Amino acid sequence: MKMPGVLPFGRLLLEKYLHKGAAAIDATAGKGADTLFLAERADLVYAFDIQKQAIDATAQRINQAGYTNVHLIHDSHEKILEWVPQEVINNTAAVVFNLGYLPSGDKSITTTTSSTIQTLENMLPSLPKECGILITAYPGHTEGAREQNAVDKYISALNQHSFHAAKYQFINQINHPPLVYALEKR
Amino acid sequence: MKMPGVLPFGRLLLEKYLHKGAAAIDATAGKGADTLFLAERADLVYAFDIQKQAIDATAQRINQAGYTNVHLIHDSHEKILEWVPQEVINNTAAVVFNLGYLPSGDKSITTTTSSTIQTLENMLPSLPKECGILITAYPGHTEGAREQNAVDKYISALNQHSFHAAKYQFINQINHPPLVYALEKR
Repeated sequence: MKMPGVLPFGRLLLEKYLHKGAAAIDATAGKGADTLFLAERADLVYAFDIQKQAIDATAQRINQAGYTNVHLIHDSHEKILEWVPQEVINNTAAVVFNLGYLPSGDKSITTTTSSTIQTLENMLPSLPKECGILITAYPGHTEGAREQNAVDKYISALNQHSFHAAKYQFINQINHPPLVYALEKR
Repeated sequence: MKMPGVLPFGRLLLEKYLHKGAAAIDATAGKGADTLFLAERADLVYAFDIQKQAIDATAQRINQAGYTNVHLIHDSHEKILEWVPQEVINNTAAVVFNLGYLPSGDKSITTTTSSTIQTLENMLPSLPKECGILITAYPGHTEGAREQNAVDKYISALNQHSFHAAKYQFINQINHPPLVYALEKR
């Protein structure tokens, strides 16, 4: 496939925002794939997860790759502003959300509609101009569909003078594949 | 804006499909911007428009840039298969549609829902594997909204085993901005 898939498209976008000298936030560390991507391209990364298993897996991945610029926080992303100092927020180039459950983890523990929207609500006003926010949603399972719906509604209602908000999705698949939302603070 | 706009996103995708040695088709030459983009990156281009004014403008643009690899056809894109030889179709890397009316032309003359769908219906089965089809739609005016709706429905119903079909759009603007559909023959 020459067309970018949803995850490669997200990476392609992140490349436009990330740069050395900047900070980045991984709101959902999971197994650490995005955290590592951010650590390679920014000076400082804060990565959050509510699951100890995810924090451990991410720590291992980051250590193995030899990166020492990641703060791993075992807490909900709703509390990002409590953990990340304001001067780091001011210098944040990108924030990544990969919604849903931990792959091969306990599927009953997922990001939830209320925590995701609450996190955006908390954080968006504090982020600097030109910061990119990338949200990958997985409507293929029940809570995921509910969450994607809420995120879609929330993002569609953001003031166009404050945010650019785009969506990239595959539209002819029967199994509700993942899709990506991209926000940029204006 | 670091996020790609709809037109730059389309170009970014076209770059993935186009290459020297291949042919390309501009189904809606308009003022020739896409035709020129294709002429620069493919060996042979067929460009269609139903308006003489558009053909003349495109001819001038292509000539001024010194390209001699463009066949300009003053006819509807519904007739693409009548004009483009089968061996050229077999070697086509990308097809571009920029729907709607000619900028600064007669706004009563637009591509129409029926001609666009009919053209896709005629052409898609004949295109080679890995050919990319890019469709930019303009739902900001009445016929444009109707057309976008029909294109969306048509593309969403394409068999996922025959086509990858993606959509990129800005979702928080009140004035129904242009959006882009990308198809890839599997």
